Parts: sequence; C-alpha cells; structure tokens
Amino acid sequence: MIRLAVNDIRQTSITALSRAGVPAPHAETQVDLLLEAELRGRPSHGLLRLPRVIERIHNGVCDPVTQGRHEWRSSNFLDVDGGMGLGPVVAKAALAALAPRAKETGIAIAAIRNNNHLGMLGWYAEAVAKAGQIALLLTTSEALVHPWGGRQAMLGTNPIAIGMPADPGPFVLDMATGLVSMGQIHDHAQRDEPIPVHWALDAEGNPTTDAHAAKLGSIAPFGAAKGYALGLAFEVLVTALSGAAIGRDVKGTLDSTAICNKGDVFIVIEAPMTEHLGMVGAYLEELRHSPSAHPGELIAVPGDRGRRIRALSAENGVTLPEALWQTINDLAKGAAA
Amino acid sequence: MIRLAVNDIRQTSITALSRAGVPAPHAETQVDLLLEAELRGRPSHGLLRLPRVIERIHNGVCDPVTQGRHEWRSSNFLDVDGGMGLGPVVAKAALAALAPRAKETGIAIAAIRNNNHLGMLGWYAEAVAKAGQIALLLTTSEALVHPWGGRQAMLGTNPIAIGMPADPGPFVLDMATGLVSMGQIHDHAQRDEPIPVHWALDAEGNPTTDAHAAKLGSIAPFGAAKGYALGLAFEVLVTALSGAAIGRDVKGTLDSTAICNKGDVFIVIEAPMTEHLGMVGAYLEELRHSPSAHPGELIAVPGDRGRRIRALSAENGVTLPEALWQTINDLAKGAAA
Repeated sequence: MIRLAVNDIRQTSITALSRAGVPAPHAETQVDLLLEAELRGRPSHGLLRLPRVIERIHNGVCDPVTQGRHEWRSSNFLDVDGGMGLGPVVAKAALAALAPRAKETGIAIAAIRNNNHLGMLGWYAEAVAKAGQIALLLTTSEALVHPWGGRQAMLGTNPIAIGMPADPGPFVLDMATGLVSMGQIHDHAQRDEPIPVHWALDAEGNPTTDAHAAKLGSIAPFGAAKGYALGLAFEVLVTALSGAAIGRDVKGTLDSTAICNKGDVFIVIEAPMTEHLGMVGAYLEELRHSPSAHPGELIAVPGDRGRRIRALSAENGVTLPEALWQTINDLAKGAAA
Repeated sequence: MIRLAVNDIRQTSITALSRAGVPAPHAETQVDLLLEAELRGRPSHGLLRLPRVIERIHNGVCDPVTQGRHEWRSSNFLDVDGGMGLGPVVAKAALAALAPRAKETGIAIAAIRNNNHLGMLGWYAEAVAKAGQIALLLTTSEALVHPWGGRQAMLGTNPIAIGMPADPGPFVLDMATGLVSMGQIHDHAQRDEPIPVHWALDAEGNPTTDAHAAKLGSIAPFGAAKGYALGLAFEVLVTALSGAAIGRDVKGTLDSTAICNKGDVFIVIEAPMTEHLGMVGAYLEELRHSPSAHPGELIAVPGDRGRRIRALSAENGVTLPEALWQTINDLAKGAAA
C-alpha cells in the first residue's frame, strides 16, 4: 500500500479519464465519487473501479459524454434514458433536474434505465441533504443474493440511501440489502480464510464456510425474512418504475463488457421545516449519548462514522495498493490498461 | 376461543363503535381494518384493539368524527393535522387526497401528525396497489426498540409498508423494524416461556431470556446494525416531514389515555406501465419457483401468505377469545367497556 495526497490521486485519475475521452466536468464527477469512497474508508467502492470504467468506455458499453436523455412522464415524474452514460454523471443530472421540481412542488421522482454503475449511493444522498433537501435513492445490481428460504442468487444487493439535513452534518443512511458484500467474500478468499456459516451458500445452494465456494454461490439477505422482503421490494419497485431488467437478467454491474441494464429510482423531497429539523437534531444527540453496550462509546448514527473517517483521511491522505496506483498512472500516461 | 362468521363480528363491532359516537362510514373503516388483520392471521392488530379505540373516544383522546384537516404545503405535499381522529379514517382521507395528485403529476406525499394508531399498515398499501398505484408508507410508534449497541428503548417499532400492483395479487410488504413485536414478548410472558437471548434487553439494558423482564425493557432492532439504521432513518424522516414527536417523547400508541403524537408519512406514486408490471410479474413467478431450501415449498413473496390465510379465513370464519367477543357484544349493547 502506498500513502498518497488526495489531490495527487484526484489529478492523475482525472487525467486518466480525460485520455479515455471523458469531458473534464464528467471526469471530475466520476473521480470525486470514487475518491470520496476512499476518503470514507470504503475502498471497495473506490479507485479500484477506475480501470474498469475506462475499459467499459473502450469496450463501447459506456458513453463518456452523455448525461442521459430526460423526458418528464408527467410534471413530477422524470424518465431518464441513461444512454450508457457514466453512472454518476447521469445520476447527478437527474438529481439536478429533480431539485427545483421538489422545491417548487414538494416532491419529485426519477426512474433511470440504461445507466452505468452508481458506486457509493450515500455520496448522492449526502449531496442532496447538504443542499437542504431529502433524498430516497434506490439502485439494483446483478443477482448475488438468495431469497430467504432459497438456494440461488435471485436478487441484487439492492442498496438504499436516505439523506436528510441534520446538525452537525447530514443524516446519511447507505446500506445494501445483502448480509455482506461480495467484496468481503472475495477478501476472505484472497486470504484463504473461512467465512461465517450464515453468510453465503455455494453454487449448489448449500451453506458453506469456504469463501472460494461462496464466490460462485450466493450471499444471504440481511435481516433474515424481513431484509429479504425489503431487498425484493426494492428490486420490483425499481423495475416497475424504470423498466430496467430484473433479477437474473441484470448484467453489466460487475464486468467490463456487458451493457449495464439495472435501474435507479431517486425521490427528492423538499426541505423540512427548520423547527422539525431542530427536533431531529436534539433527538440524534440524545440518541448518541443514550446508554451504550460498550461503555465510553457513543451510539452510532448513520453518517457520523463516515464523517469521522473522512476528516482523518483528508488530513493524512489515502492509501492505495501500489499496483492500482501504477495502473492509474499508466492510464494517465496513455499506456494500455 | 370461539369461531364466528365474519359478518357477525363486523356488524357487532360497527354497532359498538356507533354507540361511542362514531359515524357509520368511519365505524366501517375502523372495523374493516381490524377485521382484515384477523382474516390475515394477525390478531395482535385485530379486534382486541377495538375496546381501546372506544376507551380512547370516551377519554377524549380520539375524535370519532374528524377526517383531519388538509393543507397543501405545496402542490404535491399534503400536511395533515389529524385532529386526534380515528387512525384509519384520517389515513384513508389523506390517501384519497394523494391519489388524484399522484395520477396527474406522478407522485405526491402526505405528512400526518396528531393522528391515532394506524393498525396494520399493509391494509392501506394493499388498497393503493389494488387501485393501480404504488404506496410507500411509514408510521412511528412509542420507543420500544434499542439502538444497535445500545441498552435502552430509543426508537419506535417503525414499520414500513410498500404496495405495488402485481399478478395474481398485489405485492405487499408490511414489516416493523423491530426484531420481534412487543406482542410476541407478552405472549411468551403469559405462557411463562423464555425468549431467545437476542430478542430483547431488560430494564437495565442487559440481555435477558425472561419474557417478564423483557416486557419492561427493550426489543432488539431487526437485521443488526443495518436494521437499526433503517428504523432510525424512518424515525427521523417522519418527524422531519410531519413535525410529530420523536423517540422517547412519542406517547399514546399503546394506552387509552395519552394523546397520540406519533407521525405518519405516505408517498403515492402513479401506476407503473403495464409492460413493466409484466416483467415484475414474470420475475415474481420465477422467484416463487426458484430452488427452495425446503423442498416442495415455494419461495415466499410478500403478500402471498396473507392472501392464502385470508382465503381460508373468509371460508372458515375467524376465531376470537370468548372474553373479547363478550366485551364487544357488551359495548354494542351499551354496557360499560
């Protein structure tokens, strides 16, 4: 691992994207998303995804220029054809279109199809919250999760993000509906470590503690029957609204060659009243200091941990695997990925 | 237990409410909600709540006449002051106001304060779905759930319901964000049976298997840290939007004397396109028949089980505890509750 200044990573990564034909503002958006994941200690959603973004551009399954085509199905329902654009570019353009509509009318929704991977969903939720509005964001993914009582991957990891203004910083929930991520299983496999028995099934649908077997199988839903039901609700909601592919038909969220046919649904709600936010802020503070099972530790509030890690990273820089940093530098110099 | 014809229960219960000053259409709404819970095998949300509704009217913390006062904060954001009305009466009036707005513009939202208990949230979600639209419904409750890593009840059981049109019947998710209900703990206490160790904490915040001790303590959130974060997001979202009480300040969802100051948030989204619903229907059918961990059993899809039980109940009638049936009959005859 190599420790790097944030701005060095940023500039080199933007250059790498520019060489692949990404306009400067789009390159900044894509890099800021990936960098933010690094800053928040979530490298699985970080710069390791940059080479794949560039491969997808080279392979013709990502259009680096488009921001997506917008069509208002009705006054408050935005249909977006992402046109195989960069995930965060299309997503931010949709959110930018929703913001004034929500401000004016109270609430607006976008359903997006034909868009690339969004990355860390909390990034978008936090941006909406910082602008004073509320965000409810859903996105689907390739089937990796088995149903509760099932033996085969039938659902995406289907994260939800909820962002809301709060003091001292936004309330930001960002969670997948799988019990663990496929990245965590890959990490265990790489270290040849067993996984807990309830994490995953093997390719035949049997419980396994072998991380290598689990890589070919399916992840458990979080929260047993309830978490499964929730992830399933998101899967069907996104397709019902966007017309995106569903279940095992979803492709292109993990590789460099398939068109990404998952869907995204964004709901933006107008700013809550200041007095209501005051009640929420006081409650969250009471919650943080309520009796803890781990004496001396505060109760966790979504958004707090990410902000803490971010403050440290901004000061100390970010560490990247040396090979990844070399790859990004090669891409910035125009060498093949 | 006594087995009764559904219509006998319905008529007697409506009479009991009428005697307490509830106008006929409101009495029908309230009874149909409670009866539907019985029909779906969820007696904790059923007729046992009827005497308490009537007590609340007698105690002046439920106005049986009002449907709530509606004020559009903006064109698509409905503020509702429930005026201490009957929970389902105020809720249905709000949903009726949202439906045409969602049809016309794509999406609309209502934030409700000062309303009584809603009961089984799935009932409303199913009604919206049967009318062809999508419902996302939240409601809060008295603090019964401890934070993940906490020792004291700080959150409501904060259920979510999602309803969506589907074939052969609507997709209806209805789940609380507590691991179990306080009703399940009371059931164990009544039978002097221990509860599993991870269900609840005692009043001092220590893990307990004693159901009696758990009754005075707090319920675990479902789904560990993720489920806690989600329940918390609903808690803050409802207060931010409605201005209702939050956390330990919430009262009146469990007793007969306190004004009910929790909040409700309803989002209604316009009907999805038919072709999208076709994809969803085909997927749900594939899911039901995907490999099962319990050979011969279908994979569960939210809404299926309730419909199955309902069909049986409609045929065979419903069983009520004899004492409850006697109480309802007494109330219908005008005897004291």
